[in-house]
Amino acid sequence: MRPAILQLEESKIREVANAGMGRADVLAFWFGESDEVTPEAVRQAAIDSIAQGETFYAHNLGLPELRQALADYTSALHRPVVSERIAVTSGGVNALMLAIQALVESGDEVVAVTPVWPNLLAQPAIMGGVVKTVSLKPVAQGADQGAWRLDLPELLAAITPATRLLIVNAPNNPTGWTLSAEEQSQILAHCRRTGTWILADEVYERLYYEPSAKGCAPSFLDLAEPEDRLVVAHSFSKSFLMTGWRLGWLVMPPSMLASMGKLIEFNTSCASVFTQRAGLAALREGGSITPRVVAHLKACRDRLVPQLQALPGVQVASAAGGMYAFFRLQGHDDSLAVAKRLVAEAGLGLAPGSAFAPEADGWLRWCFASRDLNRLDEGVIRLRRWLGL
Amino acid sequence: MRPAILQLEESKIREVANAGMGRADVLAFWFGESDEVTPEAVRQAAIDSIAQGETFYAHNLGLPELRQALADYTSALHRPVVSERIAVTSGGVNALMLAIQALVESGDEVVAVTPVWPNLLAQPAIMGGVVKTVSLKPVAQGADQGAWRLDLPELLAAITPATRLLIVNAPNNPTGWTLSAEEQSQILAHCRRTGTWILADEVYERLYYEPSAKGCAPSFLDLAEPEDRLVVAHSFSKSFLMTGWRLGWLVMPPSMLASMGKLIEFNTSCASVFTQRAGLAALREGGSITPRVVAHLKACRDRLVPQLQALPGVQVASAAGGMYAFFRLQGHDDSLAVAKRLVAEAGLGLAPGSAFAPEADGWLRWCFASRDLNRLDEGVIRLRRWLGL
Repeated sequence: MRPAILQLEESKIREVANAGMGRADVLAFWFGESDEVTPEAVRQAAIDSIAQGETFYAHNLGLPELRQALADYTSALHRPVVSERIAVTSGGVNALMLAIQALVESGDEVVAVTPVWPNLLAQPAIMGGVVKTVSLKPVAQGADQGAWRLDLPELLAAITPATRLLIVNAPNNPTGWTLSAEEQSQILAHCRRTGTWILADEVYERLYYEPSAKGCAPSFLDLAEPEDRLVVAHSFSKSFLMTGWRLGWLVMPPSMLASMGKLIEFNTSCASVFTQRAGLAALREGGSITPRVVAHLKACRDRLVPQLQALPGVQVASAAGGMYAFFRLQGHDDSLAVAKRLVAEAGLGLAPGSAFAPEADGWLRWCFASRDLNRLDEGVIRLRRWLGL
Repeated sequence: MRPAILQLEESKIREVANAGMGRADVLAFWFGESDEVTPEAVRQAAIDSIAQGETFYAHNLGLPELRQALADYTSALHRPVVSERIAVTSGGVNALMLAIQALVESGDEVVAVTPVWPNLLAQPAIMGGVVKTVSLKPVAQGADQGAWRLDLPELLAAITPATRLLIVNAPNNPTGWTLSAEEQSQILAHCRRTGTWILADEVYERLYYEPSAKGCAPSFLDLAEPEDRLVVAHSFSKSFLMTGWRLGWLVMPPSMLASMGKLIEFNTSCASVFTQRAGLAALREGGSITPRVVAHLKACRDRLVPQLQALPGVQVASAAGGMYAFFRLQGHDDSLAVAKRLVAEAGLGLAPGSAFAPEADGWLRWCFASRDLNRLDEGVIRLRRWLGL
């Protein structure tokens, strides 16, 4: 096998989860997934499609009506986007992998902002890319204590004409950091100068808790021209409670679409028609699904974070977006070991910060997407007890 | 974008199909897909799973019970295989792409036997591999006229210690050629000496029309040891009428499994649980589904091929496996142009031989998987009329 594949890091999140699998007494907040089932209307659309016998191959790029619905959805949130810029993919991670296959040649330099979901660093490595990271910085004191902030000049300095691709995930998993429109504008202008592609993982754009006109985080799609070197990856997983469906999409320059169709053919051929029917129903029902999901997640965040902030030795800020509380536990710097001990000794399942960047060791990620808010309280009780408080 | 991606050939099959899309008067035999809906029991298993709310992430490698069922299925056909050698994938093409990501480094030499399904050549090209082809040879005269045969010494000579991977698809799409057990044994022995991996696309193994003990074409899994450098790709599409579900699997050395789990995480994360439930039902019901499918396909083949053989200027042999009649039309050497003219002038949709290899120009592929045998007769009438016979 290829050394690059052997060297890919196994997920530290799974390493912790494996230590607690099958233990009914563990409160699991390790994965980025709500514990709520997909809404009934969405499931029914897939059931109807299967019952009607829609079991054949589909277009590589997705059903034309789903691509149009996604173009309309995107256009309602951002600048107008035509369906000739949309490809349906087998999940958000698949969308990202396809974009990276299109863009990253072996030996190409890739700049990524960390801490970040580890898949975003593994994917360019699979293609032989050389990844350079620029780290967000945690705020140590004051009102923003525990928040992570971008040093924009440092990021821009790291992106040179030698940089093939910038990968940025905002709202960010795990820190909750988001890019401002002004920062996006400066990054876009800089990348136009250096000829660098931007791959923006914006799957959490709707899970945004700051005041905004459209219930959506700032996006590169608010700013970019159609032919800018920009690819935006999206997913039905988070905004529509559809993690297990494996349905996502890409927004790209129209000139890229034909090549993307080929890449989809050679990777998965297409998403199942019945899954795409579920996606169509999700977009149709989205006006009721997403606001409810977001209001509930905000309630989760606001229930959990103040309780964590009240613990001595904990640094954590309220995330502007996403579904995670990312917190520092002072005096516990080996987050993988701590996460494993929390499972074994406290029955509490969290993800270790080191899964997202070496500089996030000493931090822990808590996915607060919990149907039952009392589960969050019970988790804090377990943490407090384990800390001997 | 990467030059390698821009240079990927668009599917010539789709090029022809696009020319006839939306024309109800075209008899379409261009894609490798039956026109029969997935059996009801299989569809019901997915419906039940969705209704029960199985809409969450699953294990990267697949449901343990599906991996066990696939190990049992494989073991019943070949040498015993344990579930620690099985990974569930998002379709057969995804299985192949994952194997190639694991094995092919940029610059690596890959040998492939052609004519072949074009995806098998595009996938190593995406990874930066350098593909060398060894062509089957058509038999020009005698009882086997129109069959394609392997020159085994030529293939073995092409595989050297510099060859990272051999890709072979048998039973073969498009020619119907199959490897004998003796040929597989010699190829395996040779690749052991050169240290070359074998990627065997055996998705058509059950669509086999020669006498055999288990209703299955010869397989490398009849011969290889678990730790041989062998990866076998499979699909639910053909044997279980499940093309649109996008469900496949890989059989690999046990030492490869952990890396494959990582690659699945970074490509698609997992196959949907409800799709995997359909796969479980297919294996459970397979004893009734597959023999019926194969008997019907054999009837299709035996209805079509003699009618083609009766046409002057046509060379075609009865395929030992697969679902295609691959035939030469003398005096019509530009198969892409001929295929387009057949759509436009005769309402007959076939795939051009040049889609599968330059040396197969002048040939046409006819997928004979047709629920209604009369469609095949009508297709021959259209061809005969177009030929002015």
